[in-house]
Amino acid sequence: MKKLLCIAVAAGIGLSAHAFADRLQTELIKPIEPAVITDPEKVELGKKLWFEPRLSMSGFISCNSCHNLSTGGSDNLPTSIGHNWAEGPINSPTVLNSSLNVAQFWDGRAANLQEQAGGPIANPLEMASSHVLAVDVINSIPQYREEFAKVYGTSEVTIENITDAIAVFEETLVTPNSRFDLWLKGDDDAITEQELAGYNTFKSIGCVACHNGPNAGGTSFQRMGVVEPYQTTNPAEGRVAVTGKDADRFNFKVPTLRNVELTYPYFHDGAYWKLEDAVDVMARLQLGRELNEEEIDNVVAFLKTLTGEQPEITLPILPPSTNDTPRPQPFGAN
Amino acid sequence: MKKLLCIAVAAGIGLSAHAFADRLQTELIKPIEPAVITDPEKVELGKKLWFEPRLSMSGFISCNSCHNLSTGGSDNLPTSIGHNWAEGPINSPTVLNSSLNVAQFWDGRAANLQEQAGGPIANPLEMASSHVLAVDVINSIPQYREEFAKVYGTSEVTIENITDAIAVFEETLVTPNSRFDLWLKGDDDAITEQELAGYNTFKSIGCVACHNGPNAGGTSFQRMGVVEPYQTTNPAEGRVAVTGKDADRFNFKVPTLRNVELTYPYFHDGAYWKLEDAVDVMARLQLGRELNEEEIDNVVAFLKTLTGEQPEITLPILPPSTNDTPRPQPFGAN
Repeated sequence: MKKLLCIAVAAGIGLSAHAFADRLQTELIKPIEPAVITDPEKVELGKKLWFEPRLSMSGFISCNSCHNLSTGGSDNLPTSIGHNWAEGPINSPTVLNSSLNVAQFWDGRAANLQEQAGGPIANPLEMASSHVLAVDVINSIPQYREEFAKVYGTSEVTIENITDAIAVFEETLVTPNSRFDLWLKGDDDAITEQELAGYNTFKSIGCVACHNGPNAGGTSFQRMGVVEPYQTTNPAEGRVAVTGKDADRFNFKVPTLRNVELTYPYFHDGAYWKLEDAVDVMARLQLGRELNEEEIDNVVAFLKTLTGEQPEITLPILPPSTNDTPRPQPFGAN
Repeated sequence: MKKLLCIAVAAGIGLSAHAFADRLQTELIKPIEPAVITDPEKVELGKKLWFEPRLSMSGFISCNSCHNLSTGGSDNLPTSIGHNWAEGPINSPTVLNSSLNVAQFWDGRAANLQEQAGGPIANPLEMASSHVLAVDVINSIPQYREEFAKVYGTSEVTIENITDAIAVFEETLVTPNSRFDLWLKGDDDAITEQELAGYNTFKSIGCVACHNGPNAGGTSFQRMGVVEPYQTTNPAEGRVAVTGKDADRFNFKVPTLRNVELTYPYFHDGAYWKLEDAVDVMARLQLGRELNEEEIDNVVAFLKTLTGEQPEITLPILPPSTNDTPRPQPFGAN
């Protein structure tokens, strides 16, 4: 009732549009915009490669195995399962909105999505193939060669083109129109009073200092455990592995909070399953703040407004192997 | 040119429609008809469960892992990869058109798709969950309870309802309008002269005696190796495991030939990757016939006309776990 009155009053005195514009300017989290697709054939090719298990040595693991588009672009496991059931070293970050990150991987060792895409294919703990083998597999399949010819002007498949197509597909995996974004754009009714209270706590205690921009994160590297050290058995050292600077030890890329209700468990070690716990830990370790239960519940309620429209994906039909296609080796050479 | 003339003549004397009707009656392979969906909400729920990795203990393996709808409803591996990278005992049959089979599994131990669906969930070498755990997981998720309430009139999730919904989704996974079916329905131009020659060989040497019906197979159990024994290291004994009758030893359900170009490698042990080899082996072992290269190529060309329209699947967005959802245990208890 109060809200309705305010809108009526604002509209009456012509302030409404101005107030909405202000929110877009003043708030540090920015809306996610829908993907603009300029080359649909490249996106389609990238989508096939995204779901392509033959990019792995076993013929079983695809990009989508660990960044499942049915489950928030993540695998909802503490660390991922790789070739031969290898236990991955770190939590798989969501692919959703990943194009909005300053860099890729928790330590930012890949400058962009294309560079990232080459990593898991050749990582023995992940897809366990090699760039040479991956290219041989794709090159052996005439339908793929035709598609590469159309999209890249040459039927010679290269790892650069494979990873480029995957990256271009990934750029389409954005989640616009979350309730929070609708609120940012002026729809006061898009979030509840509790959610707004949670957002205000999120801002006032300082979460937004790192979780900002369109991805509510992904803009910087920060130390995990600023006020108190973070206890973990995970050996990952963070950004120091890239820069070699001791100051970067235990610095990780700030993860996005977009769709965070879908991307449990949390942190680089995937040690926390409950969003309430993750909020509590972050407030204490990063900000030295002890939130009470109501504050935590409010922040969690706010975080759930960051769930956007999930990409609508039609499962690709992959072209069959030929007699010349290198065969998968799930259980060693056969 | 000759073909055009024949059609013109046939049409001219009014025999055309009659000839087409005859083909539907006289040929032993029958067309696949499109799915008729009477309960779209149940199909949608079944699709979610089909892609649901939380039905496995690891949270990583779904029905689609081994019956991948991007790759002919199969995994294109000799035998499947299960929990903890277990090597499966037998080749995963395609889910496509499986509702048209007389029974499910290679030995027919499941009478229907619903009965089949319960198997892999609780098989320690496959999804390694249990029916109790699977029900607990789904029951812990409010969106699932709501969907079950809508579809089954009760929000109490049971394993019977889970497997029923999966089976109803699977019934939609048919592949109509293959070029061969268009030919069966009267389109002479739908297949080439080589493909027709291959079909004639397929009939004349007796393949069609077992590979008949709409699924070009799936209608009976037959001995693998009638004229000569089949050499394999795979220990599967076939239908005797179900009936206990020694006469059923090494009898297996005749696999469908629908979409066979997509469902390599072949036979219950997945030992043959090339369709040419599979045709050669079948002709020799089952029929005592030595086909020459041209005959084999023709039969293979015919078999590729059995690839139908693949189901168009929009990837489901799965509802998130709650704090009460049993957690996946990919690497043992945690």
